[in-house]
Amino acid sequence: MRSSQYLLSTLKEDPSDAELISHKLMLRAGMIRKVASGLYTWLPTGLRVLRKVENIVREEMNKAGSVEMLMPSVQPSDLWEESGRWDQFGPELLRFVDRHQRDFCLGPTHEEIITSVIRDELSSYKQLPANFYQIQTKFRDEVRPRFGVMRSREFIMKDAYSFHIDDESLEQTYQKMHQAYCNVFDRIGLDYRPVLADTGAIGGSNSHEFHVLAESGEDAIAFSTESDYAANIEKAECLAPEGEAPAPTQDIEKVATPNCRSVKEAAESMGIETRDVLKTLFVEGASEEQPVVALCLRGDHELNEIKASKHELIADPLVLVSDETVKATAGCAPGSCGPQDLKIPVIADRDAAVMSDFACGANEDGYHLKGVNWKRDAEYTDVFDLRNIVAGDKSPDGKGVLEIKRGIEVGHIFQLGDKYSKSMNCTVLDQNGKAKPLSMGCYGIGVSRIVAAAIEQNHDENGIIWPESIAPFKVAIIPMNMHKSENVQQVAEALYQRLESLGIETLFLDQKESPGVMFANTELVGIPHRLVVSDRGLKNDTIEYKNRDNSDKADLEVAKVVDYIQSKINNN
Amino acid sequence: MRSSQYLLSTLKEDPSDAELISHKLMLRAGMIRKVASGLYTWLPTGLRVLRKVENIVREEMNKAGSVEMLMPSVQPSDLWEESGRWDQFGPELLRFVDRHQRDFCLGPTHEEIITSVIRDELSSYKQLPANFYQIQTKFRDEVRPRFGVMRSREFIMKDAYSFHIDDESLEQTYQKMHQAYCNVFDRIGLDYRPVLADTGAIGGSNSHEFHVLAESGEDAIAFSTESDYAANIEKAECLAPEGEAPAPTQDIEKVATPNCRSVKEAAESMGIETRDVLKTLFVEGASEEQPVVALCLRGDHELNEIKASKHELIADPLVLVSDETVKATAGCAPGSCGPQDLKIPVIADRDAAVMSDFACGANEDGYHLKGVNWKRDAEYTDVFDLRNIVAGDKSPDGKGVLEIKRGIEVGHIFQLGDKYSKSMNCTVLDQNGKAKPLSMGCYGIGVSRIVAAAIEQNHDENGIIWPESIAPFKVAIIPMNMHKSENVQQVAEALYQRLESLGIETLFLDQKESPGVMFANTELVGIPHRLVVSDRGLKNDTIEYKNRDNSDKADLEVAKVVDYIQSKINNN
Repeated sequence: MRSSQYLLSTLKEDPSDAELISHKLMLRAGMIRKVASGLYTWLPTGLRVLRKVENIVREEMNKAGSVEMLMPSVQPSDLWEESGRWDQFGPELLRFVDRHQRDFCLGPTHEEIITSVIRDELSSYKQLPANFYQIQTKFRDEVRPRFGVMRSREFIMKDAYSFHIDDESLEQTYQKMHQAYCNVFDRIGLDYRPVLADTGAIGGSNSHEFHVLAESGEDAIAFSTESDYAANIEKAECLAPEGEAPAPTQDIEKVATPNCRSVKEAAESMGIETRDVLKTLFVEGASEEQPVVALCLRGDHELNEIKASKHELIADPLVLVSDETVKATAGCAPGSCGPQDLKIPVIADRDAAVMSDFACGANEDGYHLKGVNWKRDAEYTDVFDLRNIVAGDKSPDGKGVLEIKRGIEVGHIFQLGDKYSKSMNCTVLDQNGKAKPLSMGCYGIGVSRIVAAAIEQNHDENGIIWPESIAPFKVAIIPMNMHKSENVQQVAEALYQRLESLGIETLFLDQKESPGVMFANTELVGIPHRLVVSDRGLKNDTIEYKNRDNSDKADLEVAKVVDYIQSKINNN
Repeated sequence: MRSSQYLLSTLKEDPSDAELISHKLMLRAGMIRKVASGLYTWLPTGLRVLRKVENIVREEMNKAGSVEMLMPSVQPSDLWEESGRWDQFGPELLRFVDRHQRDFCLGPTHEEIITSVIRDELSSYKQLPANFYQIQTKFRDEVRPRFGVMRSREFIMKDAYSFHIDDESLEQTYQKMHQAYCNVFDRIGLDYRPVLADTGAIGGSNSHEFHVLAESGEDAIAFSTESDYAANIEKAECLAPEGEAPAPTQDIEKVATPNCRSVKEAAESMGIETRDVLKTLFVEGASEEQPVVALCLRGDHELNEIKASKHELIADPLVLVSDETVKATAGCAPGSCGPQDLKIPVIADRDAAVMSDFACGANEDGYHLKGVNWKRDAEYTDVFDLRNIVAGDKSPDGKGVLEIKRGIEVGHIFQLGDKYSKSMNCTVLDQNGKAKPLSMGCYGIGVSRIVAAAIEQNHDENGIIWPESIAPFKVAIIPMNMHKSENVQQVAEALYQRLESLGIETLFLDQKESPGVMFANTELVGIPHRLVVSDRGLKNDTIEYKNRDNSDKADLEVAKVVDYIQSKINNN
């Protein structure tokens, strides 16, 4: 591509409204432009990268035996009513009426459509397993779109759906798709981790997220130092400490802790560590009979709302009760609560249950108790895993301890089971001639988000450093003073034509621009291989080569440049 | 692809709700399924064809120097308000509000977005000409979607937009795009015609449509028998007849024509030909001063509303007035009107103006006049081209006469001029440093519609006969009784693997099905080359070859099959 016939559209300055580095660089490198909140135009450079990601995803899906189809983005409400999601889905689902006043939505996901297709097309277990995908523009009406294409409203997703006669078959395809996802991220060249995940609103039993590791990631992920265990901290289990709570050594004592509103303030006031304080929280119960439940955690631990909400006595999703309800239940403000003498269920975190001689609120404003011990002074109804994992915790698989890193979620796979096939009556005849609801898996990759995630992981102060697999161009040719030197022009032109004829995507900077601007642009856009053609070099029959990550720089003989580039590209 | 891992989903019976042959065949061949009115899922076979069309379009656009980008499908109202189209566009524009009650639409076309991108990115005439395209899902809320993907609400379009400092540059790019369109349809292998077209609501000066010729086409196209002149009959000019109206030979005479409501009935009643009757129609005028205008045409000619509306005295779009207004203007019902003594402008069609001794309504219910002559008995204000061309008319370029055929519009290119750039203030600095609104072209191809149009032109009683360029698979392998014969299975399997390894897309019918079903399916789906592996053939070391259009059938030596297929494919 000649820059004179292209739209490079780079920006010198950081755009003021972009926080994230990938958002800034995508604007500066001329990859995207904002049309409205959460809506972007992909300029030519951005689209080239997007299509490369898309192609890698497509090839790996095909290899995994998933078959491509394409469903409409506009979906009729009746299918969503069958699944029950028309009412369940929040305002992220953009709903509208057509000219005949019929209800439709813009698809954020396609479980309903594919289930309706499959129930019409498949009738026998002999046609299973089946696995289909599409790569398509989706829409989620995010309340606060931000970070450019990382959290936009319109985005491109690969979504796949598999259908099975039983869960064993689902498990096999799930593993195949897990591997295909690893292949995608390996081929792109990203540092990523598949992690155990919560299934959330989509439902189902087993689920993995794929995270690109980056400091700016919105998710925290826990990894074992000694095994391949990895999980979103939403999901990561905290093992029960070994042994029981030590026997009491102290008597209970009531101390004044005036104006202490937090565990930290109370601990300081009492001259002890936060880990020696038991904190008590009140949340809504799952039943009308037990509308309030107390949760007890070690003072230095954080409540994990997703894990806690899985307890049968606790409402899902978890909701903290109002201060008025706390007062009515415990007789004091939230800062002074404790488990003693409560008339409601008390659920202790596994680590809280092995504390002894601890401090906790006295259920009287401005007072705490010290030297408290379970059984002797207070009772819990149940022990449960309620807290977020922290770095240094033991890995749930028993191997090593956990580290925590930030990740950007770029893929998510689910074993849905019969959630959709049951409500939408998607059955086939099984081996015994009986109608059986299918077991389903679903598998998403955020194609446009991968582009941003790759930048978060691969950049320096001068711009993007693309993995070669998804670079918009492989090679940039910079001719120095081409408009004055016929020699430079001829050599650069010949080199460009030769590289293009070999199918090596090359950006030829053929416009009248200063070398400084051309260097800055090729670094900003992140083109892996740069060739500078100059009179000074040609005097020695050389062209200057440099690669974007600064790992290689050389003056190459003109006749050997193309071979050198080819060997570089093939090695990557 | 093995059929066991695919979704062939063919139907034996014609679906009851499909009128058009392409719609029937796309349903029967498992290419599409309806999700809701005008909304379709592209099943794997349909998508394979769609992607092939898309790739040919993409390659030809790239060759023509158009650069791909991707704009959002959801568009904010403010840009449409700038262009004035938010109010102008009818209910085909699907409008909705997002969760923050802001107005958006689903894009049926992208002039507004591209113009806003370009006004921000380009600043100098030196950056011109520029030419961008996208291949994208569009939405038009058709009042009555029908004919499957031929007139669906969600569809895939390639839309391109070019920007120029002046109309000469626009004309050059327009010609280049015209050629690129011809290349696309040539490569696909369609019988098509580029025809002069009306610019319609999009506006601008020059315009061509590209029509695939098919009897089911919605448009009528006029062609010269002796030149390459071709135009949509909406647009095709009717030359003025040579010479003037002959001198009168008859006296005017009033005759009773009771109960005659049409020209045909009146002519029969008077015992003359319809071509000797002048018909008079009343339409709304362009100004308040002249709210009604009379149009006169030869009785056997049809009014062309689009051409007529271009007359300065006639409202655009053309509107026939009510019977009450006719009565108030002419003193009678529409069936008895004539031009005599009207107090409003009378515009005569070119052919009507050279009539003499003609019949026409007497402006009195139930009466006509005979022997009427212009000037002596009635006056016209102006002569204008008001009628549809008919077969046998002279070609407007003076070469030969016109034939009329039916066509399916699959492409449309426009010279828009400054319609959008002026209203949206899209300017660059010209050679003199002055801000100048850009001259714009726009260029559309209906990617999904091409799939249906190709079928309209290429089918027989057994199904689709794909042009090889867009066939979903090149080769079908039918193994006879594979589940009983190990030999058949081994030979078929080896053949399949060899063809796939050569990149020849092959459908291997590896499911337990009767030969009749397999033959019917491959014919229905339209796979160009069919190979039948049977014990009977293998006894003679042969495999049976047949191509879909029945032009070739042969028993091939097993060892020579692959070469034969390769030579067949390369020759196409």
